[in-house]
Amino acid sequence: MKIRFEVQDPPSTIKWLVSSTSNAWLDQAIRNPLKILIDHAHCERKAAGAALQLMFRYLCEPGLAEALSPLVREEMEHFEIVLELIKKRGHYLEPLPAPPYGTALAKNIRKGEPERMLDSFLVAGLIEARSHERMSLLEMHTPDKELKNLYKSLLASEARHFSTYWMLAQERYASKEIVDRLKKLAAYESAILSTLHPEPRMHS
Amino acid sequence: MKIRFEVQDPPSTIKWLVSSTSNAWLDQAIRNPLKILIDHAHCERKAAGAALQLMFRYLCEPGLAEALSPLVREEMEHFEIVLELIKKRGHYLEPLPAPPYGTALAKNIRKGEPERMLDSFLVAGLIEARSHERMSLLEMHTPDKELKNLYKSLLASEARHFSTYWMLAQERYASKEIVDRLKKLAAYESAILSTLHPEPRMHS
Repeated sequence: MKIRFEVQDPPSTIKWLVSSTSNAWLDQAIRNPLKILIDHAHCERKAAGAALQLMFRYLCEPGLAEALSPLVREEMEHFEIVLELIKKRGHYLEPLPAPPYGTALAKNIRKGEPERMLDSFLVAGLIEARSHERMSLLEMHTPDKELKNLYKSLLASEARHFSTYWMLAQERYASKEIVDRLKKLAAYESAILSTLHPEPRMHS
Repeated sequence: MKIRFEVQDPPSTIKWLVSSTSNAWLDQAIRNPLKILIDHAHCERKAAGAALQLMFRYLCEPGLAEALSPLVREEMEHFEIVLELIKKRGHYLEPLPAPPYGTALAKNIRKGEPERMLDSFLVAGLIEARSHERMSLLEMHTPDKELKNLYKSLLASEARHFSTYWMLAQERYASKEIVDRLKKLAAYESAILSTLHPEPRMHS
């Protein structure tokens, strides 16, 4: 599944993800619903933490806190919903070693400004786009009705998250610069996932 | 103003704050409404950050994330409300050097567990209790109706925050241990504020 997002100016189409998730990941995820659920809870809290960190780093940048603070709240709300379901199934959060995905992606964030801010938005947007793509796949293919309903309920707001990062970039950088950089980062994102991580994770 | 909170077991009364805020602080705050408002926004985001950090540190501690995640959301919501008012008044967030309060208090958190967790709850609760006390004072005494309404609207949920930290402590530690430690930390908190910080802040 390709996720496409309209660039407002100039009118053209960009895509966040350059490759679709493999059937191997989907099989792995469907065979390990509890691990995926626990990792999902971790992903929501980490996404909230990353957005809060961005807000703290660029505190006096007008328009940033206004966009990221509601996103933090929404990630925490999703975290709570997923945690409830984990508990309903008789389990709790447990530490799960993270797959290489997040750290490997973050290594591509350039150190100097204004590149660092742009890369931070794009990396966060890519992670959101990938999460959205995988939740859509799970919603479509899981035989577990409760999980299907969970993913369905989260998908609309998850889609808003990558458009928030897109909007933050568009407000501050030239379209060509964004699209060129996104192409590189998206190719890298796709390369990281080309080898299935042995442990079932949202981003394995 | 003393804030008292009922200990559920054994039945007795403890107080978070051992001293009331001075008139000197109130005068300073009322003469500098914009600085206090901007510092207030910073306090809300820092409180959210601190709660999220606690959640991350004690990730697999049942009951902690359930209590702290809604608190994080509420702090962010307050942050957004205060930021709106700052913008309505033609300003934005600006970096304000923090007063010694938070850092000085945090130095009292013991390093080893389980003391570290208890102290973290009590320090966070003390900060919330002091914020609540000062917002109550501002609500009572500010001549600015818009600010009066702001503080009034925030006070009820701010009060819930220190009781959240109290509850987290009560669920995990013996009442005597909590009360003994709180007495020491509260005395220290009061000592930090006994000298008015020259810059107007929520915790100057």
